Amino acid sequence: MDNPSSSGLTLAELAKRLGAHLDGNGERVVTGLATLEDAGPDDVTFLANKAYLKYLADTRAAAVLLHPRHVEECPTASLSLDNPYLGYAELSRLFDPLAARDKPGIHPTAVVDGSARLAEGVQVGPNAVIEEGVRLDAGVIVGPGSVIGADSVIGESSRLHANVTVYHGVTVGKRAILHSGCVIGGDGFGFAHDGGSWHKIAQLGGVIIGDDVEVGSCSSIDRGALGDTVIDDDVKIDSQVQIAHNVHIGEHSALAGCVGIAGSTKVGRHCMLGGGVGLSGHLTICDGVQVTGMSIVTNSIHEPGVYSSGTGAMDNALWRKNAVRFKQLDEIAKRLTQLEKAYRQS
Amino acid sequence: MDNPSSSGLTLAELAKRLGAHLDGNGERVVTGLATLEDAGPDDVTFLANKAYLKYLADTRAAAVLLHPRHVEECPTASLSLDNPYLGYAELSRLFDPLAARDKPGIHPTAVVDGSARLAEGVQVGPNAVIEEGVRLDAGVIVGPGSVIGADSVIGESSRLHANVTVYHGVTVGKRAILHSGCVIGGDGFGFAHDGGSWHKIAQLGGVIIGDDVEVGSCSSIDRGALGDTVIDDDVKIDSQVQIAHNVHIGEHSALAGCVGIAGSTKVGRHCMLGGGVGLSGHLTICDGVQVTGMSIVTNSIHEPGVYSSGTGAMDNALWRKNAVRFKQLDEIAKRLTQLEKAYRQS
Amino acid sequence: MDNPSSSGLTLAELAKRLGAHLDGNGERVVTGLATLEDAGPDDVTFLANKAYLKYLADTRAAAVLLHPRHVEECPTASLSLDNPYLGYAELSRLFDPLAARDKPGIHPTAVVDGSARLAEGVQVGPNAVIEEGVRLDAGVIVGPGSVIGADSVIGESSRLHANVTVYHGVTVGKRAILHSGCVIGGDGFGFAHDGGSWHKIAQLGGVIIGDDVEVGSCSSIDRGALGDTVIDDDVKIDSQVQIAHNVHIGEHSALAGCVGIAGSTKVGRHCMLGGGVGLSGHLTICDGVQVTGMSIVTNSIHEPGVYSSGTGAMDNALWRKNAVRFKQLDEIAKRLTQLEKAYRQS
Repeated sequence: MDNPSSSGLTLAELAKRLGAHLDGNGERVVTGLATLEDAGPDDVTFLANKAYLKYLADTRAAAVLLHPRHVEECPTASLSLDNPYLGYAELSRLFDPLAARDKPGIHPTAVVDGSARLAEGVQVGPNAVIEEGVRLDAGVIVGPGSVIGADSVIGESSRLHANVTVYHGVTVGKRAILHSGCVIGGDGFGFAHDGGSWHKIAQLGGVIIGDDVEVGSCSSIDRGALGDTVIDDDVKIDSQVQIAHNVHIGEHSALAGCVGIAGSTKVGRHCMLGGGVGLSGHLTICDGVQVTGMSIVTNSIHEPGVYSSGTGAMDNALWRKNAVRFKQLDEIAKRLTQLEKAYRQS
Repeated sequence: MDNPSSSGLTLAELAKRLGAHLDGNGERVVTGLATLEDAGPDDVTFLANKAYLKYLADTRAAAVLLHPRHVEECPTASLSLDNPYLGYAELSRLFDPLAARDKPGIHPTAVVDGSARLAEGVQVGPNAVIEEGVRLDAGVIVGPGSVIGADSVIGESSRLHANVTVYHGVTVGKRAILHSGCVIGGDGFGFAHDGGSWHKIAQLGGVIIGDDVEVGSCSSIDRGALGDTVIDDDVKIDSQVQIAHNVHIGEHSALAGCVGIAGSTKVGRHCMLGGGVGLSGHLTICDGVQVTGMSIVTNSIHEPGVYSSGTGAMDNALWRKNAVRFKQLDEIAKRLTQLEKAYRQS
Repeated sequence: MDNPSSSGLTLAELAKRLGAHLDGNGERVVTGLATLEDAGPDDVTFLANKAYLKYLADTRAAAVLLHPRHVEECPTASLSLDNPYLGYAELSRLFDPLAARDKPGIHPTAVVDGSARLAEGVQVGPNAVIEEGVRLDAGVIVGPGSVIGADSVIGESSRLHANVTVYHGVTVGKRAILHSGCVIGGDGFGFAHDGGSWHKIAQLGGVIIGDDVEVGSCSSIDRGALGDTVIDDDVKIDSQVQIAHNVHIGEHSALAGCVGIAGSTKVGRHCMLGGGVGLSGHLTICDGVQVTGMSIVTNSIHEPGVYSSGTGAMDNALWRKNAVRFKQLDEIAKRLTQLEKAYRQS
């Protein structure tokens, strides 16, 4: 696809691509995408959150993507559709300059084992390393310095940014995006104890990642001990996330930054884990569970819903007093019960 | 060692290697290791946790590694020994295909400084970089894209996976395993303040890592400010862990994923820190301390035992009410005391 | 600058460089820097914290950097100045061997795009990759295996250690230090939901990093969705930190290890976030806010001060009882109110 940020797109074309209703001059060309506040006269913008409605009247944009209910208030051309945030997502991809930079082919400094099978249109960047038996499907992009271990498979149109590491025996589906510094298939944390020392349990399983999965920068997905760690289709994983061995994440679930999931835990479909959430090992979290930021979950969850732990932040002086009382909480509760009892009997 | 996953091992051979008592046909060959549920007729399996006892009767495995007390219930050949989990650890290493792939030698794309001393059998992967004065002892493996800084020493039989970074002046012992993306010897976080701006304190110490240490993917162990950060023998560190400058971790301790330890804290021997645990700086944690997941420790611990902080997860609506009350906790406690006093006087 | 750890510096020279008052023999040469306890007769040391005053009398150091108030107690030469910790910072940089190892020039295995503009004195290490349109200003050092994406700019005298990744369209100011494994400019975590699946929002913004910024190992700073993620001058970021898209960190703020900041949050100037602190998205944190370790902040903060959340660690048996009571806390508070009311009416 041409990069519209140079050549531009007409509003008529945009309306067609987004399935939106255009109210305005279809021949007007836009060359960029910006927020309501920042957009200039060559930009398209969007309104997807009523908190920003206050900026609509004064926008300088050529056109605004919005819900039909706001068309009348729009001071310029409008592209209306039912889910403008989804429309914005599509719009953002139209204006992404990244694809325009891709140059299929194997860079001469890349080290590709002779037994690797690279499909058409594959791009392997400078100083990348592709080990024996690897299979890269059509359109795969491997960034500079990335390493793909023996016998791993990367599905069609997946993109590994620079300095990604995929160990041996890992399978990644189609259209995956793996960000720099992430590591897929490192050893799970498995040791037997003899009463004095630790003895390593070789991690013989692999990692299976479905289609349309994204993994953020510097995240770790460990390989299984026996059997695989499994990330299902359309799972989105942010940066600095740790997924231990034999974890299973169900389709369409999203894990925000700094989440940690201990070994063998199963997370259902359509779950959302907030930033810094920790799940203990060997749990089952059912579909449709949302856990708020920095909560710890130590028991399985069998009902969809929103779950939380911890306390909110407060002034440190007040917090110190309350935190001391927390250590007395069981005693406080017992004293209350005793007093209630005494009062009732008096 | 041959990779038994291709050539196989007889049960008699396995019994001998594990020091187990065989009950069954010693000439039967097994070619793989799997769980009780998944094992096929060419696999050996193990029972090390009574939660899985229910799968024993129906296993299709050729042989089961288990405790002598379960031999009678075993429907197939048994390999019995006192610590079957430890036996499983040994078994797992017998079936690890990784070693079979190693190819000692220096890859032509590796950049090895002329002053580096590489012992026999060393393997340096594609695009790895070995700086001046580095010493790699016998059998060291440096994965693709890994970088070892000036004057660092890597002990016998240690393995650095792909894209590991070891700064200058770091010493790693024997049989270490450093996973991809981990960084050993980055600067500690040290700055002096002049009332307005920060002034960097150059981190002049190093990192000393003992024998049999494992460091997970994307973990950081910072170098000392003055003097060294020290990780003693047989310490096991999971992924996404942060160890600050001048920390000292005692022998046989284990740190689960996402642990963070602030500067100059000393952790004793045989300690276990659960996932996401945080230790403040300048603490002393005695031997034999266990801290449960996501707890924060802000004071030194002088008694072995299990320690925790935080609250468990609950339904968000209930949590919101309780979290509000936490902010009133000191006041609640005082009101209770007052009421008790009033009641006693009445 | 010569590396004084080989050639040494006279005390007179040191006094001059530090602006300190020397009491002792100006011609004495020191070749190293160590702590009060560890310093030998060729070392200089410092006293900046009264907890170490007890070591002063027995130090073997050639000279001690200290506050004028301690000159009389000093058993050897003294270098006195008002902020000895700041003096120590300067001293540490004088004794840093790192600079002595730099070798300006482009290593033959580095891959530098023909369109990149490299100023004088730039150093690009083995197997580093510099993409098209990149600009490296005077004295920039790019470590082995580091990758700098298209059109990014690295300011004067900045140092990227080994295996750093900078995406396309990132601007880094002067004298920055980026540690190994850190990733600048990965995609923010942005997706639109259609009721079933996630749709990626291309992250079209960049990252702008000011002067004198340090980023620790394995930290992530994501690019903006639209508009930029901004890190102002003199911000210090430790290891394992996650900074999401469109975050803004004000000048002179410091973020300790494992901090996570969600999207679009603005942190003021002179803020200090303790290890493992989490900030929710779309918050405003005013200047001069300090948040203690592992606290979560879910609301904006408009008053400078110290803030905390959570509970301190305690013995696990006691903690279990108290954590159960936390789930009843709202109920406990209501029972207390009821009892107070009943008592008042009786």
